[in-house]
Order: sequence, then structure tokens, then C-alpha cells
Amino acid sequence: MENSQTEISALGEFGLIDRITKGLELKHSSSVLGVGDDAAKLNYGGTDVLVTTDMLLEGVHFDLTYVPLKHLGYKAAVVNFSDIYAMNGIPRQITVSLGISRRFTVEHIDALYSGIKLACEIYGVDIVGGDTCSSRQGLVISITCVGEGKSGKVVTRSGAKDTDLVCVSGDFGAAYMGLQLLEREKVASAGQKDFVPKFEGKEYLVERQLKPEARRDIVEMLDAQGIVPTSMIDVSDGLSSELMHICKASDVGCRIYEDRIPIDYQTAVMSEELGMNLVTAALNGGEDYELLFTVPLTEHEKVSKIPGVKVIGYITGSGLGCALITRDGSELPLRAQGWNPLKDE
Amino acid sequence: MENSQTEISALGEFGLIDRITKGLELKHSSSVLGVGDDAAKLNYGGTDVLVTTDMLLEGVHFDLTYVPLKHLGYKAAVVNFSDIYAMNGIPRQITVSLGISRRFTVEHIDALYSGIKLACEIYGVDIVGGDTCSSRQGLVISITCVGEGKSGKVVTRSGAKDTDLVCVSGDFGAAYMGLQLLEREKVASAGQKDFVPKFEGKEYLVERQLKPEARRDIVEMLDAQGIVPTSMIDVSDGLSSELMHICKASDVGCRIYEDRIPIDYQTAVMSEELGMNLVTAALNGGEDYELLFTVPLTEHEKVSKIPGVKVIGYITGSGLGCALITRDGSELPLRAQGWNPLKDE
Repeated sequence: MENSQTEISALGEFGLIDRITKGLELKHSSSVLGVGDDAAKLNYGGTDVLVTTDMLLEGVHFDLTYVPLKHLGYKAAVVNFSDIYAMNGIPRQITVSLGISRRFTVEHIDALYSGIKLACEIYGVDIVGGDTCSSRQGLVISITCVGEGKSGKVVTRSGAKDTDLVCVSGDFGAAYMGLQLLEREKVASAGQKDFVPKFEGKEYLVERQLKPEARRDIVEMLDAQGIVPTSMIDVSDGLSSELMHICKASDVGCRIYEDRIPIDYQTAVMSEELGMNLVTAALNGGEDYELLFTVPLTEHEKVSKIPGVKVIGYITGSGLGCALITRDGSELPLRAQGWNPLKDE
Repeated sequence: MENSQTEISALGEFGLIDRITKGLELKHSSSVLGVGDDAAKLNYGGTDVLVTTDMLLEGVHFDLTYVPLKHLGYKAAVVNFSDIYAMNGIPRQITVSLGISRRFTVEHIDALYSGIKLACEIYGVDIVGGDTCSSRQGLVISITCVGEGKSGKVVTRSGAKDTDLVCVSGDFGAAYMGLQLLEREKVASAGQKDFVPKFEGKEYLVERQLKPEARRDIVEMLDAQGIVPTSMIDVSDGLSSELMHICKASDVGCRIYEDRIPIDYQTAVMSEELGMNLVTAALNGGEDYELLFTVPLTEHEKVSKIPGVKVIGYITGSGLGCALITRDGSELPLRAQGWNPLKDE
């Protein structure tokens, strides 16, 4: 290795992305919004076309010891749809590229693909292309999703304004707890024949980890209420980290209330069992695939009517930073300790 | 592994793709053409939008012993542009997903990315998104390209008609010979300090392998001549294999002449040195990234004026199969023994 080389872990995922995308210019008129949001925004024939892509690598993003291939396919597709919904768009097409190592059989790939197809059927998305090749290095899945935005209604991360309400769908931390549970049972099962994992009373956690859904329903209900969020993002890396993305992109601060963060009962039980801080898990767990968005204060009544949506705080001016207001009323600065595989390595 | 499992090598890449994409339906009106061509054809706002994707895996598609990272980035982008040109379209945007293992430094990724950026600059393409994550085993590159088609002028593989002329750009077999040369020098260099590879007089072969170009010029010249090919494909897997794709998709046969296949002098010298059959290498070598297309017989004069384009044969009725007419006038059936990594494994 040459001299003066920098370890990637020194920068982390976001640092590396910042570095390689620095100075990128959009030169063609059909490129409206590039790197830095949940999806790129293009414009073809006057229509907003959204493009997002996700790569999943065996041993980094999934462990086939406990992830069924059909679920993996389903999740790989859904996480892309989630990025399109986060732009207030509708996913329309995907391409699927697979790198397949020798230990996989045709039947394995059938199972993986059946999950991808099921997700596409449920969300009304067409599979229009892809690439298939052999891999020396386990299973590689790269999916790109093309979506459509309604004219003038595409929502980015950068429109949050002082006094806007911070809203979320669903609940947080369950997928992370599901991962802890699956890892625990994997360890417990080591070397045992006929091992039966203990998932009773924790089915929701397992489902949130293995078979997440994208919040199409929320995007549809917002539209039905005539609400266009001022900013939106999907929660893949953890609520705290995503909130900071919105605040940075919008040049604002925020305050969210600890006691308003929606957390499922099973998540709380599991966190108790593991001796983990529940709020930390909910703020930083990641893989929730819920929507985090802001709306003007004037939409309070309308947004409160949407089932599954909760107002958890508000946007402030930019100088005030991002903070959590705890149950006892004190302010803790939010930290982005979201899931960061390049730093964890 | 469960019972009655089928090795993927039993099907090969194309067999596996056929199996997993069988019965795929396009349900949304914006999906015009799905799996089975160089790119998918979508329609947004009345504009034809083309989407193609390619995955490159270390140890399968490239060997970093002799492939400089900058060249690799350049090639990874260009092969996608080539797919868009093969639809008679213009590449506009790409997304770039990278899986990076620990042995790569920030400077390595800078080099890789500089090649991608250079290709984008030269071909007028914007980088609009991507994904970056850690990999446990080597470098993974997945690029998706979005292109634009002129109204009514997108060209697929399926429009070739009896009596059409079969045309190609450039020459064939050079990239394959470049690979043989690089592999030979790699073996020769093993364990030697200050080894200087012998590339004199073979620079063209090395360049064709390491830094291919996409034939934008041909697409532009066809347009300038007012020619819309009846079918087109880019030659990535070998001329023979691609010709058979066109004939299968168009339900026609073809005859091509051995003595009309364009081959560079350096390719011939190298094939002599290696004791390989030159025509076999030109027909099956792959990675030429030239365009193979058909035009109506009436365009003979116009197409012959385009520099770098050569008529190599003609299309026949479907019952007649695909054959090479050798120098002595005999007919040899064409075989698709193109590069097939899933079968080679």
C-alpha cells in the first residue's frame, strides 16, 4: 500500500460519501436533485422521476443463519420503496442485480426472488431489469427503484421551517430489538440439534426486523388530507440520525420529547430483558422504515387525524441545535450514532 | 442443503435469468419494455426513459493486480452508457453503489471515483445518487444508468427483418486479447521485483481491455444520416452471442461473412502468438463494447458512409438459423459461447 493512505474508518460512511460527492455538478437539465436525499429527482417530459438505490451484502447487512431468503428479497425491495415514499413519491419500477456464490442453488434464488416479486405485487411495482452474475463473496443484492412524483409535491429533506411540527409514523426500536433477539437465539442454537428459538410474545420484533413494510399508507393519507410535508425522510439509520439529516439539510434545529416517541410494548420488554436503555434504542436502533416528516403548525389538526402518526416535537431556528427533552424537562443534545457499517468495521 | 437442489451452473446465467424473470408482467402504464433488452424502456410524461444496470465484482469481473482503480471506475461507468447507446438513447444520469472492504483506503476510492467522474464528464452524464457500504470480501461496484430516448427512435433487439443488413462498429477480439496479454504478464511478473510488462506494439489491446469506450459517435452519426436501425445491441458477451440474441428476439436467422469481421492487426498478431483461432476470438471474445445493429437493405449506401461501420452480413428468415460463411464458402452454425461467468464457475 502506498504512503499517506487514509483508512476509510477514519471518515465513516457519511464522511466518505461527502468526500467523493463533493463538487459534483448536475449538468443536464433533466437532473433536478442529485446526491443527498432519499432519492434523486429527475425530470422527464415534465414529470418528476425519482431514483434510489440500495446495496445489501451478506455478512454486513444480513445473516442467512436466521434470515429466510424470501424475507430477504421482500425486505431488499421494500427498503427501496421506502426511499421513494420518503420523497412523497410512488415507486413504479425496480431493477434487481444479484451476485451469487457457489453455495446457492437455483431453488435458493427462486426463494429470494419470490420475496422480491411478492413485495412488487403488494406495492404495485414492476421488475424491469437487472444483472445476474457469479460472486466469490457470498450473496450481493443491489436494487434500484424508479418512482414518480406528483407535480410540485415531491418532498425533500431541506424544507423544514422554524415552528414546523415534527411527526413520525409507527413506532421505533422494534427492528433493532428484533435483531438483538435473533442474534441471541443464534448464539443459543449453536451446536444444538432441533433447537427451537424462543420468540413467544416477541413476534412483532422479529417481524419488524425480517419483514418491514414501507409506509405507502401514510403517504396516501397525507395526500387525502391535502398535506404536503415541508420535509420528509425514512428512518433507516435511526430516528436521531435522520432528524439531524433533516435539520442539517434545512438549516434548522429541533426539540423532540422523550415521552412522545412511540415505542411498542414488546420493544420495552425486550430492552428491559437486555438491560438496554429503551430511549437510546428507539432513537438509534435503525431499520424502522417509518416516515419522519415536518408539517406547518397550521396542519396540526389535520395531521393529528391520521392514524399511526404522532407529533413528537417541533422545529426551531438554526442556532438552537437538535435536542431531546427528557421526562424531567432537561435538554439532551441529540447524537447521530446511527448504524454506520463503515465506521463499525 | 435441502433435497432436490439444482446447481446454478446447470442453468448458466441466461438460463437462470429466464427462470427468475419468467411470467413477469408489466402492470404500470409507465413500464413499456422490461427484462430482455440492453435497457428497460419506461415512459414518463411522454418521454422514453431508459434504465440499465451492471454489477462488477472483484475476482469475477476484474483483477486489481493489473487493473488500475481509475480505469476500473471509467470502465464501470462506460459499460452502462454502452447499454443506453445500444437502445439508440443518450445516457443522462447514473447512481453508483460501492461495497468496500477494509484493504481499500480513502485514496483508493478517490482513484476509483475519479475514473467514474471522468467518464461522466466525457459522456455528459450526471452522478445523482448511490449507496456506499462496507464489504467483507473485496470491491463491489453496482451502477445504474438512466437515459433518454428520442421519441419513436428507441431501438430494441427485436426488430430485425429478413434481408436487413447486419452492421458493426469498430473491431472485435482486441479486448479479449488484451485480457490474455495482461494475464500472461501477471504470471510472468510473479515473485519478480521491478518487473516491466511487455506491452510494446500491443498497446491497443491493453487499452481495449482496460479503458473501453461506448460508441456515442456511432449513435450520433446514424442520427445525422437519418438512419434508425431496425435492431441494435452492444457487444459485451461476444459478437456471436449478441447476434444470436438479436436473431432470437427478432425471430429471424442470419448469415455473416468471416472475411468481413473487422479485426485489428494487433489482435491478429497476439492470436498468432498464443496459437488461438483468430475468428473464434473475434466472435466470442467479448467486452468489445461495439454496436451490432441491423438496417434495411435500402440504407446500404447511407450506412456505408459512416466511418468505422462495416456491413458483415444479412438477416434471413427464421427457419435458416445463424451461420458464419467461411472464406472457402462453407456455412458454420454460430454458437453462443460468449463469456458466461455463472457457467464458467
